[in-house]
Amino acid sequence: MKILITGGFGFLGQRLCKRILEIGELVGVNDETCAVSRVVLFDCSQPPPDLPTDSRVTFTKGDITDAGQCKNLVDEDNMLVFHLASVMSGQGEADFDLCWKVNLEGTRNLMEACRARKGSRFIFASSGACYGERAPGPELDSMKLLPQTSYGMTKACCELMINDYARRGFLDGRVARLPTVIPRPDINSGLPAAFSAVIRESLFGRDATLVVRPDLRHAVCGFRVLVRNLLHLAQLPEAALAGSSDRCMNMPSLSVTLLDLHQAVKKVVRDPAKLGRITFEPDEALSAKLSTFHNDMDATRARSLGLVGDSSAEAIAADFVAEYVDESLLKPVVELEEEPRHWLTLSNPYLRVFRVENPPGDQTLMHRHRGNSLYFFFENTRTQGQKLSEAFLDDAVSCGEIRYGDHASCNLVHRIRTKGPRVMCCLDVEFTASDCKPEGGSEGPDAKRARTEPPAIAGLSLIKERPTARVYSLEVPAGGSWQGALPFERMLWIVHRGARVSGGLGDSFLQPADVFFREGPQQLSLEVLGGQRSLALWLVELL
Amino acid sequence: MKILITGGFGFLGQRLCKRILEIGELVGVNDETCAVSRVVLFDCSQPPPDLPTDSRVTFTKGDITDAGQCKNLVDEDNMLVFHLASVMSGQGEADFDLCWKVNLEGTRNLMEACRARKGSRFIFASSGACYGERAPGPELDSMKLLPQTSYGMTKACCELMINDYARRGFLDGRVARLPTVIPRPDINSGLPAAFSAVIRESLFGRDATLVVRPDLRHAVCGFRVLVRNLLHLAQLPEAALAGSSDRCMNMPSLSVTLLDLHQAVKKVVRDPAKLGRITFEPDEALSAKLSTFHNDMDATRARSLGLVGDSSAEAIAADFVAEYVDESLLKPVVELEEEPRHWLTLSNPYLRVFRVENPPGDQTLMHRHRGNSLYFFFENTRTQGQKLSEAFLDDAVSCGEIRYGDHASCNLVHRIRTKGPRVMCCLDVEFTASDCKPEGGSEGPDAKRARTEPPAIAGLSLIKERPTARVYSLEVPAGGSWQGALPFERMLWIVHRGARVSGGLGDSFLQPADVFFREGPQQLSLEVLGGQRSLALWLVELL
Repeated sequence: MKILITGGFGFLGQRLCKRILEIGELVGVNDETCAVSRVVLFDCSQPPPDLPTDSRVTFTKGDITDAGQCKNLVDEDNMLVFHLASVMSGQGEADFDLCWKVNLEGTRNLMEACRARKGSRFIFASSGACYGERAPGPELDSMKLLPQTSYGMTKACCELMINDYARRGFLDGRVARLPTVIPRPDINSGLPAAFSAVIRESLFGRDATLVVRPDLRHAVCGFRVLVRNLLHLAQLPEAALAGSSDRCMNMPSLSVTLLDLHQAVKKVVRDPAKLGRITFEPDEALSAKLSTFHNDMDATRARSLGLVGDSSAEAIAADFVAEYVDESLLKPVVELEEEPRHWLTLSNPYLRVFRVENPPGDQTLMHRHRGNSLYFFFENTRTQGQKLSEAFLDDAVSCGEIRYGDHASCNLVHRIRTKGPRVMCCLDVEFTASDCKPEGGSEGPDAKRARTEPPAIAGLSLIKERPTARVYSLEVPAGGSWQGALPFERMLWIVHRGARVSGGLGDSFLQPADVFFREGPQQLSLEVLGGQRSLALWLVELL
Repeated sequence: MKILITGGFGFLGQRLCKRILEIGELVGVNDETCAVSRVVLFDCSQPPPDLPTDSRVTFTKGDITDAGQCKNLVDEDNMLVFHLASVMSGQGEADFDLCWKVNLEGTRNLMEACRARKGSRFIFASSGACYGERAPGPELDSMKLLPQTSYGMTKACCELMINDYARRGFLDGRVARLPTVIPRPDINSGLPAAFSAVIRESLFGRDATLVVRPDLRHAVCGFRVLVRNLLHLAQLPEAALAGSSDRCMNMPSLSVTLLDLHQAVKKVVRDPAKLGRITFEPDEALSAKLSTFHNDMDATRARSLGLVGDSSAEAIAADFVAEYVDESLLKPVVELEEEPRHWLTLSNPYLRVFRVENPPGDQTLMHRHRGNSLYFFFENTRTQGQKLSEAFLDDAVSCGEIRYGDHASCNLVHRIRTKGPRVMCCLDVEFTASDCKPEGGSEGPDAKRARTEPPAIAGLSLIKERPTARVYSLEVPAGGSWQGALPFERMLWIVHRGARVSGGLGDSFLQPADVFFREGPQQLSLEVLGGQRSLALWLVELL
């Protein structure tokens, strides 16, 4: 598979390229997995000094406003194009014509080049700046886009164009409406630049004066999550996007203030006294303009498609320290929700579910597990684990494997490194300790519920039993259906192998690692649509 | 004032030009009224044979996709541009590239030409086809635009562009999101063409087979109302558009089916047997595509700005008969709500308010007034009136004049012709006959409520008293305020001279002929903002 990344010399382009090379293969047209044969980085600026030396990567300096160059870039069928190149918000306000030429005409040049080929998949970075003037409350995918910058206007136009190109079958377009990706290691000029600076400058020990109101709420996400989500979006089966003619969706984000981020940095470093000093001299006009950007982007649709968000501002800060400053500045052990590769995807009084994906060569920060946990694995790969003050030990995980960790009595503090050949992909289901149950006053710390025998339900096989949970497996063949009475008080459904379904888990395309929580005994029926994919589920009964 | 109309050889362009010439002057930049010095009709097609011969009109055949030609067209400051030229929906689906080039690049060429001049006012015809996929129910201005045709996509992009050009002060843009304008006298090719054909073909005595589902609901408006609204939108003071960064709004419309229109035609003609026969052979694919267009456009904002809608499908049909077929085919007298120059703007169990505007040279159809009515006039002009079977008699009305007609006992059947020099502009307030009161079972036909004395309220002057109503006048100076206790059971406020206000009539820019209905005794306060305009109101007490 040949991949094109525009804005390829920029921060996001570089991160995306690195991750693609680590993974080495991607799912593309017809849901076929293909090895990455070539990654073309295209940009109008000078290449940075530390470009990747991988033989699969080529570099092209050029101008996206030149339609001929775009045609040359998309010179094969079935290419995957990540279009990240853009004039940013501040520059767009300063130079309308450039903003139009690059963001709108440039995007169209590239789309036309894709249209001239078969099977192009086109991933576009839109922006929460599209929202602009709107009612208070979270920004929803279904809301009208009424941008208040030329940058946002061009992005909103591109969203409309891509939907139409996709509708007509000119290309397979998918649009990620981005929150502000932070922290950028370079000093950048967009309106939301302060949301990077508040982390970056203090960590590099530089004093900084920020001109945005410290209490202004803004939707942000960490670079790792964004890169992962762009790749996830690019690899979604076309069937997962059916059912809506809108190819554009908000990416998951955190709604934070500059003060929140400043506090998060202090919380993850070993010695807050060594941080650069942050002072605020808010520019009211700039703050007002920025407040028309995304404050709190709702990403319900994206999350239902397997896209993930940072668990906390601390995770974003910690990731930056480890990647761009000096890991030794961090406190020695971070909490699970502060670890930047653990993405909280479900949380309720009974459990927390984290999604973890580590490409080969990558490793987590040293982190602490405090609760008893089930681990569900989705890939065959080799890893290495290191407990605090011990050496790395080799390990291997396999697709479908389930492990249990009894961490409530003795916390697990460790880090994991992926050796390969594939991404380490798992779900961590952490059970809230039984002595911390927030409800049911009559249950004291030592109260134990009477254990019932596992029920016999046709189709369900009990495959694991531990003090906090039982795990059953269920398989439904392609075109088949299943129904059963489930007597459980609380249960978690986890998708092992996905398919298009209708019934009790919604009318949707289920993908591996999708998670559903249900309460109360219920009758559940499931129909697996289509004749090709069978469905495999795990049902976790909470005890 | 120099005016440019693109698409000027088309049906709407021709109607608009005709009306502009009749009026002869328009309100433009700085709310100054200027004589129309030149109307340039620009189009890419061959000029029709019956172009206006007025010396103020010039014709230019050209291509809007040529930026240089656009620059030549906008060759003065303070021009008023009506941009109607467009590739329509059906053609856009057939030829995407042409649709993009004309609708998007062409519009931008023209906007750039406006930007290069000072004080350009840019009126753009967008379309309800912008809505596309959406939740059931009426289309609101505040809804997301998710078009399902390339035509709709380009229109939605232009809306975004115009908002941004207006925000940056490049031009004063105003966007009319059009329902389907019917009936077009020529055979046209857009997806909604059947909504014209159902009227046109039967009236010309031609049999027709329509391929749209007869029960498909669609938002339409008559050509007269649309032309009037485009001119009203163009002349709105800038202050009336403040308070929202969205320059785009739905035009008022009727939500009708082809069957509704077919019935309406039968109702207004003298002899339905002479109509051409309409048969339906619905194409489900076309009907499905059309159902993504506007079904029921909500125009609350436009109506609050003085834009009007057709009173009925019958009015649309009757107007077409009189203008394009043969007035003698009509039944001899139409009802008030069937008369195409009477626009119902308020209706409740107690009264109906019609707005009437007749330019010089125009005349109403012969119509019937059945209820006692107050008439409020807003311009000085001369008219002629003709009662059924009588001769035309000269008359004159003056701005601020109020008349009363006692039509319940003896219907008034008449028609009015405007001689000039100005548009005849009035509000007809028709009172529901007291023996038809829908509420209060104890009031028989002969029951009369005890007449109270008119209350003495500081600032209010009683200027007219009739059996059904008393009219008071109220003036509030610029920068001043007024408040009073109003003991009336039901009242109608009518704006005589407008101003920006806050208080009991909303925070808005009031314009002459704006109407507000209020029930129950209340305390009302009004503040007139700004130092230039004083406010003059009429208060109608319903007896």
